[in-house]
Amino acid sequence: MSMSRAEIAKHCKESLKNIHLGTDDEGVQTAKDFYKYFFTNFPDLRKYFKGAEGFTADDVQKSERFEKQGSRLQLAVHTLAEIFENEMVFKAYAREMVHRHRVFKMDPALWIAFFTVYTGFLNSRGAVNDQQKAAWMALGKEFDSEIQSFLKHLGLPHV
Amino acid sequence: MSMSRAEIAKHCKESLKNIHLGTDDEGVQTAKDFYKYFFTNFPDLRKYFKGAEGFTADDVQKSERFEKQGSRLQLAVHTLAEIFENEMVFKAYAREMVHRHRVFKMDPALWIAFFTVYTGFLNSRGAVNDQQKAAWMALGKEFDSEIQSFLKHLGLPHV
Repeated sequence: MSMSRAEIAKHCKESLKNIHLGTDDEGVQTAKDFYKYFFTNFPDLRKYFKGAEGFTADDVQKSERFEKQGSRLQLAVHTLAEIFENEMVFKAYAREMVHRHRVFKMDPALWIAFFTVYTGFLNSRGAVNDQQKAAWMALGKEFDSEIQSFLKHLGLPHV
Repeated sequence: MSMSRAEIAKHCKESLKNIHLGTDDEGVQTAKDFYKYFFTNFPDLRKYFKGAEGFTADDVQKSERFEKQGSRLQLAVHTLAEIFENEMVFKAYAREMVHRHRVFKMDPALWIAFFTVYTGFLNSRGAVNDQQKAAWMALGKEFDSEIQSFLKHLGLPHV
């Protein structure tokens, strides 16, 4: 089954209904929760987080750094869903992500892998259905495609 | 006349129809054009751009720095218009802008002033009508209000 751009955007937005952004307790906890899930389930990827290579979920819970980083990430995911309908803006946002991550020298295969991680996070909160998961994968595929083209354009490692 | 959130978003988006984002010639030129307009019309504000305090429009035209910075800015403006309908995401984006600009120690009155600058830029391209201008001012007012609250929350200078 193939979804329209509008349907993809709608399902992605709906999947984020419980991902609260805010400086209140719920927002702060939701921000940390992503990294708690991430570091617990994908410990090998902690190597990209200098100084946090051995962080456990408990370390994240106490960390101001991952509170900030988590807020930024949850905002970025919401933003992807909000802007997806405008292809030009969505692709420009993808290229900007390349600029911001350049310094980390990430394995380029990780861009698409992020969407497996993130839908896993949503699933761990009981908040994602198959259609929403498919919508995130469709969005992620287009995001990754622009990222890889841009990495190539910049002469950087790509897949 | 007061506009709904949806109307504000619609008018802002429409005003950006000719603000192309892309790595092609048009995208690159549109990115530089903002700073050419900005530095020509608001030369006093160049003091916030270290190393470019004396830049003319010609200097911007030749500058890779302002090509990148301009791309980022045009993307941010498009993003504001795209996410405005989702108040929670819009406010989180405003707070993220505070984090990203903290290092520049900007006069806090400049946050709202940006919307005068930007609609002036749109006007210089013959692309903005009164309703669109009013929509940007309404969006800007809400953006600024969240920014100032957050600056206060952080114990930073605010208006």
